[in-house]
Amino acid sequence: MAEEKQSNINVALVHFPVYDKTGELVVSSVTTLDVHDISRICRTYDVDTFYVVTPLKIQQELVGNIIKHWMKGYGARYNPTRKEALHCVKVINRLEDAITDIEQKSGRKPKTFIPDAKDFPQSISYEQGRVEIIKDGAKLLVFGTGWGLEKGVIERADVVLAPIRGLSEYNHLPVRAAIAIILDRLLGNP
Amino acid sequence: MAEEKQSNINVALVHFPVYDKTGELVVSSVTTLDVHDISRICRTYDVDTFYVVTPLKIQQELVGNIIKHWMKGYGARYNPTRKEALHCVKVINRLEDAITDIEQKSGRKPKTFIPDAKDFPQSISYEQGRVEIIKDGAKLLVFGTGWGLEKGVIERADVVLAPIRGLSEYNHLPVRAAIAIILDRLLGNP
Repeated sequence: MAEEKQSNINVALVHFPVYDKTGELVVSSVTTLDVHDISRICRTYDVDTFYVVTPLKIQQELVGNIIKHWMKGYGARYNPTRKEALHCVKVINRLEDAITDIEQKSGRKPKTFIPDAKDFPQSISYEQGRVEIIKDGAKLLVFGTGWGLEKGVIERADVVLAPIRGLSEYNHLPVRAAIAIILDRLLGNP
Repeated sequence: MAEEKQSNINVALVHFPVYDKTGELVVSSVTTLDVHDISRICRTYDVDTFYVVTPLKIQQELVGNIIKHWMKGYGARYNPTRKEALHCVKVINRLEDAITDIEQKSGRKPKTFIPDAKDFPQSISYEQGRVEIIKDGAKLLVFGTGWGLEKGVIERADVVLAPIRGLSEYNHLPVRAAIAIILDRLLGNP
């Protein structure tokens, strides 16, 4: 099935431009655990590339060093499933770089899917999302960190998905849990 | 809806008896991040109690100290959503203590749901699981750490659920991601 050809699903985790708790635009810090967990989740759902987006050189180096540690030498022998997951990670400066990279590898501009709490003209249900995601052509699912992606980024999305609401009013899932649930809703075969 | 009365869904994360990578029965270590992430996931899906199961006193104290830090003083002011999530956490010695605790609060023995990779006579699909989970009476969803729950624990489960399979052969989701996906499959309203 999906193994036969390169998957056309990609994921980006964006650390700029995002809001902080006061509503200011900031660069959020990379959480190394996000890199490990989300790469495993991406690998499970056959995502082609997981882009970690940060303009900060020092943070880019941090992610690069994590990948190096687990891809080579002791880390790779100790934990081969982590090594396998990290294969799909790419660190980039800006979200636009993910779009360029996908265009280069797939020959077309990806359709962008972004979850957001508010209603936008491009908002669709997960049921519709499952139909959209299997259509031909590359896709890029974009997730924000901190207190959410800058509004302009969402306005430019091709598709906006509802946020994950559980059964209570509590609405503070870790981004890694939200990504797991959203990939399963869009791509999973329960 | 579910807010009107006490939820009858409970979750247990078991650190003994589980297998290690060589197939030996061991006590796995508590991962503090699991406590934070899974409590947030449980709070989102209106789980009543999240039981952290470990027989090791030192690990029980560790979890107790984390909870204390975020429930009182600086931690609680700095991150109130973490505080709210940790309200549902209870540390216990053995899985049987969760069953006794649920019996005491709900008046009946909970039905146990456990995901496992193998087929058991009690195995059902997630579609059937959604029907079972909303039936009257308390439920306890049990998740293992390490390389999985001791086989006898699974044999005694009322319901066995399929493991989460994505779209690839890669089958190494972090337990926190698997719990997020399984709660969404059983209880979510996409």
